[in-house]
Amino acid sequence: MRGLYYDGKTAVYREDIEIPKRGEDRSLIRILLSAVCSTDKEILKGYRPDFKGIMGHEFVGVVEESDNESLIGKRVVGEINEVCHECLYCKSGRPHHCANRSTPGLSKDGCFAEYMTLKTENLHIVPDELPTEVAVFVEPLAAAFEILEQVDIKPGTPVGVLGDGRLALCIANVMHYAGADVTVVGKHPEKLKLFEKIAKTTTEHMHEGYEVVVEATGSPDGIGIAIDLVRKMGTIVLKSTYADKANINLSLIPVNEITVVGSRCGPFEPAIKALTEGAIVLPNIEKYDVKDWENAFVSPAFKAGFEF
Amino acid sequence: MRGLYYDGKTAVYREDIEIPKRGEDRSLIRILLSAVCSTDKEILKGYRPDFKGIMGHEFVGVVEESDNESLIGKRVVGEINEVCHECLYCKSGRPHHCANRSTPGLSKDGCFAEYMTLKTENLHIVPDELPTEVAVFVEPLAAAFEILEQVDIKPGTPVGVLGDGRLALCIANVMHYAGADVTVVGKHPEKLKLFEKIAKTTTEHMHEGYEVVVEATGSPDGIGIAIDLVRKMGTIVLKSTYADKANINLSLIPVNEITVVGSRCGPFEPAIKALTEGAIVLPNIEKYDVKDWENAFVSPAFKAGFEF
Repeated sequence: MRGLYYDGKTAVYREDIEIPKRGEDRSLIRILLSAVCSTDKEILKGYRPDFKGIMGHEFVGVVEESDNESLIGKRVVGEINEVCHECLYCKSGRPHHCANRSTPGLSKDGCFAEYMTLKTENLHIVPDELPTEVAVFVEPLAAAFEILEQVDIKPGTPVGVLGDGRLALCIANVMHYAGADVTVVGKHPEKLKLFEKIAKTTTEHMHEGYEVVVEATGSPDGIGIAIDLVRKMGTIVLKSTYADKANINLSLIPVNEITVVGSRCGPFEPAIKALTEGAIVLPNIEKYDVKDWENAFVSPAFKAGFEF
Repeated sequence: MRGLYYDGKTAVYREDIEIPKRGEDRSLIRILLSAVCSTDKEILKGYRPDFKGIMGHEFVGVVEESDNESLIGKRVVGEINEVCHECLYCKSGRPHHCANRSTPGLSKDGCFAEYMTLKTENLHIVPDELPTEVAVFVEPLAAAFEILEQVDIKPGTPVGVLGDGRLALCIANVMHYAGADVTVVGKHPEKLKLFEKIAKTTTEHMHEGYEVVVEATGSPDGIGIAIDLVRKMGTIVLKSTYADKANINLSLIPVNEITVVGSRCGPFEPAIKALTEGAIVLPNIEKYDVKDWENAFVSPAFKAGFEF
């Protein structure tokens, strides 16, 4: 089959990849559309030196083979952490942090190919009324919904979203969906236009302006700005990851009794529901052939993906 | 009266200070014993460049004049934040973070003198059975009790206390009092002996060993170690403040969904109760005359203080 393979150093387009066997507890999925995430680009910079395999973890596909026959022929999306159900983290209600987990495109073969396999328990059926081009946003949007699992966002809560990129747009949508009073604090007025239907936008830093600040800049400078923007006893949600070190004075965290909450993957069902309701404002995905992956990776579009 | 005055550059022992007038809503307190905190030493290093006045904020005293006559003649300790009851923080249940607060020894005259004044609402009566030499630990111990207000510590929760100094000893006591499974992770075997009645002690760093890690090293390196010690989805409590910047990669906070809770001043009543019960293991305070403040400030004792 055709696909994009990471050989430990760079990405290689190949047409000679074997279609995977589904294996126990797993389903074989024919990929319809998969999407490029920043993490995929980080892999090309050496983020996962021990990984070799098919890249990608955001997808919509059709189940072709499965131990759950009711799924066959269904369109699905899939949670990315395959977990053991045996370790300390699985047994204490934290399966996303399974000590033995494997993750498509990060530690096992992913979705930038015609077929992939995934644990059947990870699959969620896509409602018929939800187009594939929208359903492909379930995974990144679920990561934004994780914030609602972690932080008490009440209607009217003043929330500042720091950043004006893709992650920030998913987060601003979810904060708006939860009824928060959302302000997006960005650097680029042209990017901030995308947010105007769901949030106030500004390039100014309002000192102690927000009860909750979600840091989604993707830069090590973000945390220092977030500490300035958040109210005393308020909450900072750290969403962005980066390879660089931050050089900051953290003393204001105890002095102002700030809570910092790290946030990663999230629940799929509320993301599917919100997308199906049409409650989320996102630009269209830009589709590429996987052979043209280099252009997809540098695309300035909000989201680029591969149609199979 | 006699006292220790900070003139904006250094501490000066004086005998010519006027006894303060108590003022509206305030009490005049005759100091019996006051204690040196690390913050007092930080002031001599320039921590509060705008402050001039009598130093000190930890004390036990006797009320001599008050708008609340029932307090006159009583032994008291006092909360350090005098608050306005009018600002955003006071009106939203966060009076310790009052935007207009004043604090003895930090922004108004403190307790390293024969007399001080404090808002009457800040005073707590010391039970007769609690010796003055023990009651002087109420303020720092209350700061440790603040952790129980912020983090759900259940009996048996594996808690790591990072640090083997004074702050760490107060914190380890409170964690032990709450029934946690406490391990103190220190650098100095001789200091760790002090903790043996209330906690396991170690100089080893157990990776992902604790659900909760309380960082009390007083060093910017502490947070990085805490990130290594805490379990995924666990909680780090930041207690120590310092002037230096930390140079660390914070990406593990989102990746491991760690929560970082900043923690400062705390509730007096549980501290008074625990000390009165004899449930807290602390060494004796070493008493000095305030004239001899230089020796008190460099004392290697667990706690040094001034008797008046």
